[in-house]
Amino acid sequence: MVNYPKGVHGVQSSVKNQIKAGKQSRRGLTFGKRGMGLEDEINAANDYYVANHLAVIYKKPTPVTIVKVDYPARSAAKITEAYFQKPSTTDYNGVYSGKYIDFDAKETKNKTSFPLKNVHEHQVQHLANIVSQGGVGFLLIKFTTLDETFLYPAPDLVDAWMRLDGHKSLSYDELKAKSYQVEAKLNPSMDYLNALDRYLEDLASGVRTDRPGRSNQASDGSVNGASGDANAGGPS
Amino acid sequence: MVNYPKGVHGVQSSVKNQIKAGKQSRRGLTFGKRGMGLEDEINAANDYYVANHLAVIYKKPTPVTIVKVDYPARSAAKITEAYFQKPSTTDYNGVYSGKYIDFDAKETKNKTSFPLKNVHEHQVQHLANIVSQGGVGFLLIKFTTLDETFLYPAPDLVDAWMRLDGHKSLSYDELKAKSYQVEAKLNPSMDYLNALDRYLEDLASGVRTDRPGRSNQASDGSVNGASGDANAGGPS
Repeated sequence: MVNYPKGVHGVQSSVKNQIKAGKQSRRGLTFGKRGMGLEDEINAANDYYVANHLAVIYKKPTPVTIVKVDYPARSAAKITEAYFQKPSTTDYNGVYSGKYIDFDAKETKNKTSFPLKNVHEHQVQHLANIVSQGGVGFLLIKFTTLDETFLYPAPDLVDAWMRLDGHKSLSYDELKAKSYQVEAKLNPSMDYLNALDRYLEDLASGVRTDRPGRSNQASDGSVNGASGDANAGGPS
Repeated sequence: MVNYPKGVHGVQSSVKNQIKAGKQSRRGLTFGKRGMGLEDEINAANDYYVANHLAVIYKKPTPVTIVKVDYPARSAAKITEAYFQKPSTTDYNGVYSGKYIDFDAKETKNKTSFPLKNVHEHQVQHLANIVSQGGVGFLLIKFTTLDETFLYPAPDLVDAWMRLDGHKSLSYDELKAKSYQVEAKLNPSMDYLNALDRYLEDLASGVRTDRPGRSNQASDGSVNGASGDANAGGPS
């Protein structure tokens, strides 16, 4: 770990601010209670990771379209009309051991399948873009009734999306077979880095590839050709 | 480049949404006109990079504390009371050639110096955290009167912050000596990847290190010791 230079303090307080921001602006406000528990757990894990210099991953602020702002005093501008936007990317990103990490969190009460309608097409496109730039993308999917959470890699999501056309459900069994289960822990309760470590090991050893469709011989073999630098020969 | 699978479309529209979000919620609303021009230029560059599969870098939404929401109809929740938050990280992050990229944009009308009060302490801390995880952090600083923009690496910012205690100004000459100037282009006008490429080359060749204080023999030599994996021996 790098020693933090004097004059550069405040990691704890900035983390607290971030967590607070997450709570106050979380999507629960927009979409009811869906996703609240998992988001809180992930925020707590990210707090723990930053404080312990394990990773720097944050939830992005909720995108809002601001229409009217009042300036009652010099001190605090007050937004009086604004609307929630549909997020065009994913909710979480950051850096872990030199790697770009990007993911979204999804919850389902189902026990036997994960409905793909929980994922937006632009999120699948965004994760495909991430992977093509050598980043690591995935979904964290929690089956709340079973109390099981899986790290589902983006390349598998893209494959399933094409195959199922985005409308159907992914069976629990297939999801589990392709995923890395997050092992239950006390602190943080949602220690998803333990699942991510196993995924990164499999990528490094070549057990898995990190390109969508590579396992299907790709579409025209261009995957290894034109791209060149980013991740040829597996992740660096 | 990876071939985008059928059924996964919409990169153009999602980029447009993001750009729109940046415009409508940009900090210009909070802090007057400061930073507007540069932000627009960076958003246009990011748009260009995503559309041409060169990088996936976005501006984060403006963080807002939401106090009151009306639900007049089922369709559109209306936020009727909210306040701008101080951002606790930086405005931009993403992935480029497998590397995690994180930066903030700053403008000054000065011609001979850059006042460090334009940078918040939590941003310096955040960039130090990023670098310690093997990410690439920097400021994009535009001298609007001179019409010159520099990519100023995070490790140099951390050094200057410690030395100048966060209150004074960085001279234009020192900044220029430590930075990579963004070469003027027509499209995108703020093609900062050309400066980033030169910085990454210098990191790869060992001309520069990516750890704050390393050039000063560090504080107690622990920089190369405990961290181990992330970036020992230069960036991967």
